Amino acid sequence: MNLLNTVKFDEKGLVSAIAQDYKSNEILMLAYMNRETLQESLEKGVMIYFSRSRQKRWFKGETSGHVQKIHEVYIDCDGDALVFKIEQTGAACHENYYSCFFKRRENDEWKIFMTKVE
Amino acid sequence: MNLLNTVKFDEKGLVSAIAQDYKSNEILMLAYMNRETLQESLEKGVMIYFSRSRQKRWFKGETSGHVQKIHEVYIDCDGDALVFKIEQTGAACHENYYSCFFKRRENDEWKIFMTKVE
Repeated sequence: MNLLNTVKFDEKGLVSAIAQDYKSNEILMLAYMNRETLQESLEKGVMIYFSRSRQKRWFKGETSGHVQKIHEVYIDCDGDALVFKIEQTGAACHENYYSCFFKRRENDEWKIFMTKVE
Repeated sequence: MNLLNTVKFDEKGLVSAIAQDYKSNEILMLAYMNRETLQESLEKGVMIYFSRSRQKRWFKGETSGHVQKIHEVYIDCDGDALVFKIEQTGAACHENYYSCFFKRRENDEWKIFMTKVE
């Protein structure tokens, strides 16, 4: 894939991957991919990350069914960040919120403003 | 600031900061803040990053005038990523595109799909 040659992986071999709802543009999560999982994501059309905490391939939704289907892919000017417009099944967050960004600043506190996905 | 205690800075003392257009939800850029520039951003209401390449405080728009005014702030479930809904003056990208994500995947290539801000 020519596409991969433009991507700048960091010293750990990772690139930032932002998942964004393809309809509403809501940001769902920020995670990471290595070269292999990026290639696999592009080939299969679903988000496959590399888990930094577990140091292994992380097929999003493999057990939960909360798969992220890729619609469009964008790269930034530096080549070290990607945006994926995706179609989310269920919830992006393991805490069962549609987005991992379910807490918003209110004065000097973080307040949950979303409700969980049923 | 209580708000800062929830934020998990990485081993380099940085947290990811996504700037998103407060009206359209378009993603404009991904950069980083350390504790000091995050606190300053929250106090002043404008985006002040920490440049990884230059290893110093980076007041966005200080010379270009392309300031990012903060409207809302979100934190993710892990506490290691922030989303800022911002009002962009001029262009977010140093290449004068409104967003740094001005290249989109088309087949096996990245294609510029935006036009530069005048």
